[in-house]
Amino acid sequence: MKALELDIVATRGGVVESHHRVHAAVVDAKDSLTAAAGDPRQHTHWRSCAKPFQVLPLLESGGFDDLQWGDDELALACASHGGEPEHVAIAKRMLDAIGLEEGDLACGPHEPFSGRGAKLLRDSGERPSRLHNNCSGKHAAMLAYAHTAGWPKVGYERTGHDVQRCCLESVARWTGLRAGDIGLAVDGCGVVEFAMPLEHMARAYARLAHTSSNGACAAKRLLAAMRTRPFLVGGSDRFDSILIEETEGRVVAKVGAEGVHCVAITDQGIGVAIKVEDGAQRAQFPAVLRALQLLDALPEELPPRLDEFLTRPLRNTRGETVGEVRPVS
Amino acid sequence: MKALELDIVATRGGVVESHHRVHAAVVDAKDSLTAAAGDPRQHTHWRSCAKPFQVLPLLESGGFDDLQWGDDELALACASHGGEPEHVAIAKRMLDAIGLEEGDLACGPHEPFSGRGAKLLRDSGERPSRLHNNCSGKHAAMLAYAHTAGWPKVGYERTGHDVQRCCLESVARWTGLRAGDIGLAVDGCGVVEFAMPLEHMARAYARLAHTSSNGACAAKRLLAAMRTRPFLVGGSDRFDSILIEETEGRVVAKVGAEGVHCVAITDQGIGVAIKVEDGAQRAQFPAVLRALQLLDALPEELPPRLDEFLTRPLRNTRGETVGEVRPVS
Repeated sequence: MKALELDIVATRGGVVESHHRVHAAVVDAKDSLTAAAGDPRQHTHWRSCAKPFQVLPLLESGGFDDLQWGDDELALACASHGGEPEHVAIAKRMLDAIGLEEGDLACGPHEPFSGRGAKLLRDSGERPSRLHNNCSGKHAAMLAYAHTAGWPKVGYERTGHDVQRCCLESVARWTGLRAGDIGLAVDGCGVVEFAMPLEHMARAYARLAHTSSNGACAAKRLLAAMRTRPFLVGGSDRFDSILIEETEGRVVAKVGAEGVHCVAITDQGIGVAIKVEDGAQRAQFPAVLRALQLLDALPEELPPRLDEFLTRPLRNTRGETVGEVRPVS
Repeated sequence: MKALELDIVATRGGVVESHHRVHAAVVDAKDSLTAAAGDPRQHTHWRSCAKPFQVLPLLESGGFDDLQWGDDELALACASHGGEPEHVAIAKRMLDAIGLEEGDLACGPHEPFSGRGAKLLRDSGERPSRLHNNCSGKHAAMLAYAHTAGWPKVGYERTGHDVQRCCLESVARWTGLRAGDIGLAVDGCGVVEFAMPLEHMARAYARLAHTSSNGACAAKRLLAAMRTRPFLVGGSDRFDSILIEETEGRVVAKVGAEGVHCVAITDQGIGVAIKVEDGAQRAQFPAVLRALQLLDALPEELPPRLDEFLTRPLRNTRGETVGEVRPVS
């Protein structure tokens, strides 16, 4: 098994000031753990990285097609989007299609995650709504599943609801775990989320990557939607979107909160799961990029838009560069 | 040597999601390392914890008294203040006294660090000025040193200026290091700051604590100013201020950026230096409190205002409590 060094440091005046430990698991198309950083069995929460596997039940049920939805809806359902007008419009359209409205979403409002989304909302003089929540696409898809399956819509986000039972079954199937071995908690958006070892997260993404050339129809469609609509998966200045764009969809990444990140390297059929031990997002993006470099999944010369995420200057209140956040090696 | 466990975790649904490693050194009145967490010789940056030792040269020079300044100015010079009107007024008064103005401060502006300061500034419709910078008191004192010593005022913040030469000598004397062994970098506020092993930071605070009963006049005055003016050292909702208030000045703490924190336990004559390895502030305050508990420096039943900093609930976008940040044990 290949050992990866993915730790990230923050320096000041050339001296390391802070250190982020990074764990990772890399699983190949044969379901084998082929590379690791730190502890590849680190047990943590999957957070928003689980989204593709939470929307698959709706797609597989036929409900998605009954609504005549397409790749835009599919990409947004997998997204941690930036709350930009285009994202909000699709989420609203999804709710309209099933006769529901913003207030039916169980997620709370928050400021748009993307710089452009935040600025446009500020300029409009309006306050953030639940549609701006980065998970509003996932929630709209869950409501659509309840709608098309004829289940109650109220409480769709809670453990025990049929929508969540199906999501858990999907997560179990893709990660190779028994449902009873998956930890359950409440996510930032109020919905059930899942805890497990990194290796199993990587396994699910390896299987997803594998579908790009050879796989079940629903997963293949979902991956294609993410690959061809990077803006809808994140936003105009969001890391995942830029990574998908710059690799022309060969690499599909999905951010999670608290430093967890998963990647499907479609042309190699491998999956990667990364966790910054302390949960810091500033270490997350450089660690993902370093992992992809070590796995030969990026061009030797990193495109400038990605390079900005690999090494980030630290500036002080005077605007001087006083250090940087970068891979330790 | 006593081993302390100061690591902090973030949980979700009862399962650990993220883990912050914490290093610490505890030095007693005899200059000995008596307790430690992780690596007590961890090399990192002292940041704002150095402030007391950066203002001592002015106090010892007599310049401070020539200006007829008192404990308010002294406490503010040691502060990472909250940018509240009282802080800003004292910083302005200090500049007025030496015929200077806000624009002479080398620090940049930033939003006030305290909730009250930020709200009052927002309500006033004004933008943050350099006086709101949490370090404006330190900068005003440095300018006052240049003024009273007859040195140029321009460039007072840079390596090589006499003010900074005296600060480095002071830091070397109190930490027990040779000046040449201290790393130099630029702080968030643009001024020289210092890198060294945690043990030496703890040594300086042990010596400072020791002065409360038996010590040099200038340091004793400085410590008394911090003990009797906790609001000026931080602000109305700032951790250090609350800690000093709740211990009636027996414990004097000084926050630094990137997870570094120093404490003088005055009635025991000991000093503590703590570093959250990854720099996260959310782990810093609980780690300081756990260290003080393990060193018997806090009441057995923690006052509610401090307890809020020991265990902090994590809420999601719906306002539900979904986990907590707390000591690992």
